[in-house]
Amino acid sequence: MPEPISTTGGNGAAIPPQPLRARGLEGVVALDSAVCFIDGAEGELIYRGYDIRDLAEHTSFEEVAYLLWNGVLPTARQLDELQQFLCAERELPPMLIDVLRLTPEDANPMAALRTSVSALAHFDREADDMSPEANYRKSLRLTARIPTIIAAFDRLRKGKEPVAPLKTGSTAYNFLYMLNGEEPGPSAERTFDACLVLHAEHGLNASTFTGRVIGATLSDIYSAITGAIGALKGPLHGGANIEVMKMLLDLDRTSQDPVTFVRDKLARKEKVMGFGHRVYKVLDPRAAILREMVEDVSEERGTRKWYEYSAKIMETMVSEKNIYPNVDFFSASVYYMLGVDVDLYTPMFVMSRITGWTAHLLEQWTENRLIRPRAEYVGPRGLKVTPLDAR
Amino acid sequence: MPEPISTTGGNGAAIPPQPLRARGLEGVVALDSAVCFIDGAEGELIYRGYDIRDLAEHTSFEEVAYLLWNGVLPTARQLDELQQFLCAERELPPMLIDVLRLTPEDANPMAALRTSVSALAHFDREADDMSPEANYRKSLRLTARIPTIIAAFDRLRKGKEPVAPLKTGSTAYNFLYMLNGEEPGPSAERTFDACLVLHAEHGLNASTFTGRVIGATLSDIYSAITGAIGALKGPLHGGANIEVMKMLLDLDRTSQDPVTFVRDKLARKEKVMGFGHRVYKVLDPRAAILREMVEDVSEERGTRKWYEYSAKIMETMVSEKNIYPNVDFFSASVYYMLGVDVDLYTPMFVMSRITGWTAHLLEQWTENRLIRPRAEYVGPRGLKVTPLDAR
Repeated sequence: MPEPISTTGGNGAAIPPQPLRARGLEGVVALDSAVCFIDGAEGELIYRGYDIRDLAEHTSFEEVAYLLWNGVLPTARQLDELQQFLCAERELPPMLIDVLRLTPEDANPMAALRTSVSALAHFDREADDMSPEANYRKSLRLTARIPTIIAAFDRLRKGKEPVAPLKTGSTAYNFLYMLNGEEPGPSAERTFDACLVLHAEHGLNASTFTGRVIGATLSDIYSAITGAIGALKGPLHGGANIEVMKMLLDLDRTSQDPVTFVRDKLARKEKVMGFGHRVYKVLDPRAAILREMVEDVSEERGTRKWYEYSAKIMETMVSEKNIYPNVDFFSASVYYMLGVDVDLYTPMFVMSRITGWTAHLLEQWTENRLIRPRAEYVGPRGLKVTPLDAR
Repeated sequence: MPEPISTTGGNGAAIPPQPLRARGLEGVVALDSAVCFIDGAEGELIYRGYDIRDLAEHTSFEEVAYLLWNGVLPTARQLDELQQFLCAERELPPMLIDVLRLTPEDANPMAALRTSVSALAHFDREADDMSPEANYRKSLRLTARIPTIIAAFDRLRKGKEPVAPLKTGSTAYNFLYMLNGEEPGPSAERTFDACLVLHAEHGLNASTFTGRVIGATLSDIYSAITGAIGALKGPLHGGANIEVMKMLLDLDRTSQDPVTFVRDKLARKEKVMGFGHRVYKVLDPRAAILREMVEDVSEERGTRKWYEYSAKIMETMVSEKNIYPNVDFFSASVYYMLGVDVDLYTPMFVMSRITGWTAHLLEQWTENRLIRPRAEYVGPRGLKVTPLDAR
């Protein structure tokens, strides 16, 4: 929390107002936003006034995207128009595929996505058009193209040709189709669609804040999103579900009992991945929804082990430490069962969060203000340059 | 300035502590830094304890880079080692030249630089190595390679082959050589070197802050610098010297009297580019140094007109409005006289500022803390999803 600052000197005389100090800006309100509300104490997550449980149960990712951008749910006709626009924009400029071909197969997938999204700007005539209409179209365009980039990158690094996007179908269906080269089953589409809904937005986290800081210089949307991807790449932000899956795979490989596994970790004071959250003090509502999905997909795939591992780890963590799992804990095994490589989990997070990021940028630009805090200088003063030969 | 918040309710009962509100974070201290001190009231700019006037007169860009990264000026031997490392790292990975060949000739140069810097990570085995030693080497590597990217981009878009970097010589000399394909004269080198010194660092501005926000997630240096480039691209941040030069060229083309030109603009309430600064209330010390350089270079090039235009505009603005020029006002005509295309001015800013950005990142990672303020939710609550066909 910020430290209150005295505005009178020790002798009671008035001194000039001192700046507010808030290291890491924790607890400081930097801006107003109508996009998302999180009540960590109650375990509530709200997009534009709608509870995440209601949205996950009753709306598709495309409806949620429209909601985030426009503040209202689409009518059937508006949804149809959005869907048509997205489908028409899925294909990548041919030179972008060439850029992906120049990307080494061992490149970090988030670095490859960051480069590709930056390069998309070169092939968008509207890249530097800051009108609200152009920025809205670019938000849709990015949402349409990011899945194509991720799937093409994954296929190229495996020595396969990219699969052209479908002209119809949901974002979830089309992505799984482009990734695997075959049409996914209805349960895979439904599950992945719900994952996209659950990850679409989460307030002013580090990547969203990065995007808004860049956008507030009136730089373009590609600059802001490229920066946000760079922030999400950080281990303190995105990427936790990768660590969860590594833990589950480790557990599976060594055939340990999950309860003993957790207790041993706790005894060794090791971190159990996927538990605890800076914001939620109770169960993350997204984790509760994903937990059910893990169970359903486990049943359908005929292997209950990932569900059982997860359930036992969760029970042990709750009973031993009273710490609840976060969204990453269950999304890991869902993505694994959908057949996605572990290092694509964070890029897939981008596929969904691009809607929240762009909603924040559209909001930022309606009433823009530069975002620029201060640093307190703690270095030396009054030094004089000594000539090089006398140092 | 942040608004103070009452911590008691209207009836005098204690209510939970309220967050500090500071829209745009203006005046809030987000972190400590020993890199740079700016005294806007006194017109002082200090890098690591040294006054910018002292540095501009007595040190080279490479010495300043070493100072920013290490906190002390280099000995002759340390400077020699730095210089050798920089020269050895100037050459681009061949595939990066191929990426530049895929960049359309009309691409925004800042977007092209953003993409290229992001792509550099794919060819750096140390890209995700977060050890202080690797991050230091990457800071040098970025400083060595960014000039090569800018020069190669400019030559390729003009239908010329890139010029390979020199194995020796200063950053300033090598850049002008790669850009023009011929060795620059001593005055051009000296002038440009001083410009690099003057632009190397300027505290927690929007791009530096962007870099630190990204770095604070423990994401890699390429992610942080890619984001910072995106922020500097914004018209509210970098890019002002481009507008200054457009104004000077407009003045030259229309053969107007500079004094009348400024007075007419003021009468029409139009902005005169390159004047005023959020931080400096007196003459920006960098502008004072650059003013002398514009005069010197004007003399040497045998055309005093850019100096005379600038001097008359400045005199008129000071006498009419008591507003002083900022650093962008004079760097515009210096770069123009060095023969650099106007749209490369902001990328050339990056060539220099990369040292300040990376110095801030190295500092951030010595005692890292996530940088994450809050948003205040101002949207609706309690909405229920209506089925699509009933909307």
